[in-house]
This record gives sequence, C-alpha cells and structure tokens, in this order.
Amino acid sequence: MSDAPAIWIDGREAATLPLPDRGLEFGDGLFETVLVIGGRISLKNFHVTRLQSGLATLQFPPLRDRVEQHLDEVMAVLDRNVNYALRITITRGSGPRGYAPPKAPQVRVIISATQITGDPLTMLAPASLGVSRIRWGTQPALAGVKHLNRLEQVMAAQERQAAGWDEALMLDQAGAPVSVTAGNLFMVSGETLVTAALEDCGIAGTRRRFVIERGAPDLGLQVQVATLSLDQLLAADEVFYCNALVGLRPVGELAGKRWSDQPVCSRLFQCYVQELHA
Amino acid sequence: MSDAPAIWIDGREAATLPLPDRGLEFGDGLFETVLVIGGRISLKNFHVTRLQSGLATLQFPPLRDRVEQHLDEVMAVLDRNVNYALRITITRGSGPRGYAPPKAPQVRVIISATQITGDPLTMLAPASLGVSRIRWGTQPALAGVKHLNRLEQVMAAQERQAAGWDEALMLDQAGAPVSVTAGNLFMVSGETLVTAALEDCGIAGTRRRFVIERGAPDLGLQVQVATLSLDQLLAADEVFYCNALVGLRPVGELAGKRWSDQPVCSRLFQCYVQELHA
Repeated sequence: MSDAPAIWIDGREAATLPLPDRGLEFGDGLFETVLVIGGRISLKNFHVTRLQSGLATLQFPPLRDRVEQHLDEVMAVLDRNVNYALRITITRGSGPRGYAPPKAPQVRVIISATQITGDPLTMLAPASLGVSRIRWGTQPALAGVKHLNRLEQVMAAQERQAAGWDEALMLDQAGAPVSVTAGNLFMVSGETLVTAALEDCGIAGTRRRFVIERGAPDLGLQVQVATLSLDQLLAADEVFYCNALVGLRPVGELAGKRWSDQPVCSRLFQCYVQELHA
Repeated sequence: MSDAPAIWIDGREAATLPLPDRGLEFGDGLFETVLVIGGRISLKNFHVTRLQSGLATLQFPPLRDRVEQHLDEVMAVLDRNVNYALRITITRGSGPRGYAPPKAPQVRVIISATQITGDPLTMLAPASLGVSRIRWGTQPALAGVKHLNRLEQVMAAQERQAAGWDEALMLDQAGAPVSVTAGNLFMVSGETLVTAALEDCGIAGTRRRFVIERGAPDLGLQVQVATLSLDQLLAADEVFYCNALVGLRPVGELAGKRWSDQPVCSRLFQCYVQELHA
C-alpha cells in the first residue's frame, strides 16, 4: 500500500463514490479517524460509541452492526506488521434534490486505510503553537459531534501551514481556548487537568475521553471540564493536546510562552501506551 | 432525463466521484443551485460572483474561466424545452490525510442537472412556516458563503418534513430570524423591505440580491439590512422568502399568525419574471 489510501465502500474495495451523495452535497454524515496498531483498532469502543451518538444526533438509522462488520472485513486484509490511520466515513447516501433527507436513507459506510510511518508509541517532541484567527463557530446542536462539516478546521489548518506552526490553537467566539485544529486541549495546574467544555463547539475526542476516564484517574489527577481562558493557559504548568494518531503531544511554545518540562504529559503518555498494548 | 440527475465532473459525464475528495471528507468546497429556464441560466452573474467570493474566502485558486467553460459544455447538451435545477459543486479535490489543504489543489467542478416539473414563472401559493428548533451557528468567518457545510439546514429541513411545514424559519443563536432552510427572508412594512443581516450566519442568496438591487428599486421600495426580531416579523404587513428555484414565495402563516394578502411580494414576483425573460 502506497501513500494513496485503500478504500472500501459498504465492504467492497472502491476508488470512486456513487453520486449523488449527501455527504458531498451537504456534509451530511460523520467520520472517525482510528489508529490501527499491530492489527488492532486502538480504543475501538470509544470510536464506536461516539459514532453511535453522532448517528443519533443526525437521526441516522442505527448501524452499529454494519460498521463493525465492515471494519472486520477491512481489518482482515490489512497487514498486521504495518500501522494505519483508518478513516470511517458515514454518509446519508443518495437522495432527491434539497436539504431534507430521504425518509429511508441508504447510508454508506466508507473506510479508507492509510499507512502510518511514524511510531505511535513514541511521544512527539513539544509542539510550537500559534493562535488561529479562525474561531470555532457557536452551534450547540452539533457541538462534540465528529460530523463532516469541518471547514473551520480546514481554514485554521491552512493558516497553521502558512505560518509554519506545528498546530494552531482555536478559540471559541468569545475568545476561550477550545482545541487545536486536530486535537483536544488540556492544561495542567498542580494535580489538576483542565479541558475545554464542548457545549457550543469542538469535537469530543476519543483521547480526551481516555485522559478523563482512564489516564487521569490512574495517576490520581483531578479533571475539570470548564471554560478556559488564554491567560490561564499561558500560566499553566503544562499544556498538551491529544488525538487518535499522535496520542498526547506536549506544547512547548504558545504565543511567546515556553514550557521546557512536561512530566505530567509524559506520565499520561505512558498510561496511553499501556492502553494501546492492552 | 429521469428524476436522477445527469452529472459531469470537470466536463466529462460521470456517475461517480474519484476518492479521496476533500468535499466529502470535510465539506471543503462550495456550491450553487442555479435555475435553467428556456436554455438560459437565470441571474448567472449573481451566481458566478458569489462563487468567486466564496472561492476567495476558502483560498481556492481562481477558476472563473473553468466554471464558465464547464457550464457552457453542460448547457450545450441540455434540452432547451425543459427547465432544470443545476447544481455546481466545487471541491478542493484529493489531498493527503488531514485538514490542511494541499498547496496546489486539483479543484473539481461537478455539475448536476435535475429536471424541474413546476413552473418557475408562477408564484407559489403562500407557505405555512414553523419555527425550527435548529438555529444557525455563529460563524462570521463563513457567514454568507454557500459552502458545503450544511448540516444545520439538513437538520432543520428534517424537522420541517416531520412537522409537515412548507418551510422552517431559522433563527440565529440570539433568537433573531435569519432565513428559512432554503431561502432568504424579507418582511414588508409599509414601503420598506427588511432582510436579515448576514454577518454571523446564513447564505447571501442570489434572489435576495435581486430583491435588494433590482426588485425593490424598480418598485420604489426602501430596503433595510438589519437584525430582525420574531415580534417584528409577526407584526409585518407581509413576509416572503426567496431562492433560485421558487423565486419569491409569500408566507401565509407563521407561529399562529396569518397573512391573507401579499401585494408587495406579488409585484416583486412580476419584476422577477421580467428579469427571467430579459
């Protein structure tokens, strides 16, 4: 498998998507980015649970069994000695013209597999962050859901790329830090972790859930889910972000502030590696 | 041509979209819904201008000539005795994994043509509206742009359909009326039209532009672009909405309030018909 992903639609290898498709037309669908390491989907249950929750929000029919089946089919043909980023994309399929979904949608399950070259079990060097001028929109009806409407992050990532930052901090409309373009945000203050509440925007990440439910409790750390401020963030002992592919990555620099030590992030990353091996 | 649309990608008839495509992955693109009547694209310049503006917002390369060329190719094969809804979809094409766009994107131009059965030159009967529980998100960076991230309208249209309304009024996060799911909103008070400002959300519709720049001046009406309130709307002499396919449609009922007469909307519709014939 080269750089180009291998793609399956509804269980069959495919290079093209039948049109029309509401995923393309309106972003009417969801996705998951999943780490496959040693022939195993990391934190699979977190991904499947989030997907089910998103399907309910968008009023898709339930399709847990279908997703699991297609995942099994794909996993069966992947090379166990290679690590992959799997992307599971669910769309509401074809429909007549217009925004209203068909009453009995023929949902499509698209899975693509891209080989990963880096080592997911090694923590990356601290990241240098800038603050994006693109802020998350305020939309409580879709907050937390990993749906296909991702232009805000695309625009912020474009800015990140042009500026040469490793990642871009994204604020909400009121200026409170929420996340980076591809990952949730945590700050460490003493024995407490604080991560942004996601009531108005953002994505409820699987690694965020890991830190809250497993990593922090294992290390005896408290977690607060709250509205952050940039001042708080800059005054924190440590800052890190997390996503399915990098795991946890410390922030070394943000808006002129530098952090040289990341002991809490390092300990959490060790918990995370144990989880991936479990 | 049956109910299923005829589709062209980059000038070639196609039934499927090459994958990966960032339009599907992130809604990274734009679209236009265009009325073709008597072998002619209605208000073509308004559509092309809006598209160019959206391309600039998303930092796509300019492609006015390509869009015009592909439109000409499609128009050449359509039946002049049939009316169509054309959808022009522009995506940032394929790219490597992740939100950041490729530096030299291979943009795709997808055009689909669906036959229209109704008569675009006849004003529809007054619509019965409900108020959607789905509100527009607040996102100044994308307000006005007709991009592919349309889940808010999909969810509101789903609610509309379930409730049996002709259309659903969509408010902004503060509760101010903005639009319906597929159309801009105007209220008439005496000799003044008021339509929602689109600084934080909504789509800058081509028929909204027609009313502001041509219809209202032709009839000697003033236009205010302002923040509306539901109370104002319910106290208005008339309310109507507009989009490329229905033109202007009066509102007959909203939240218990009924309007029996729509003289201003009818006069504007006659201006609009003259425009389509011009």
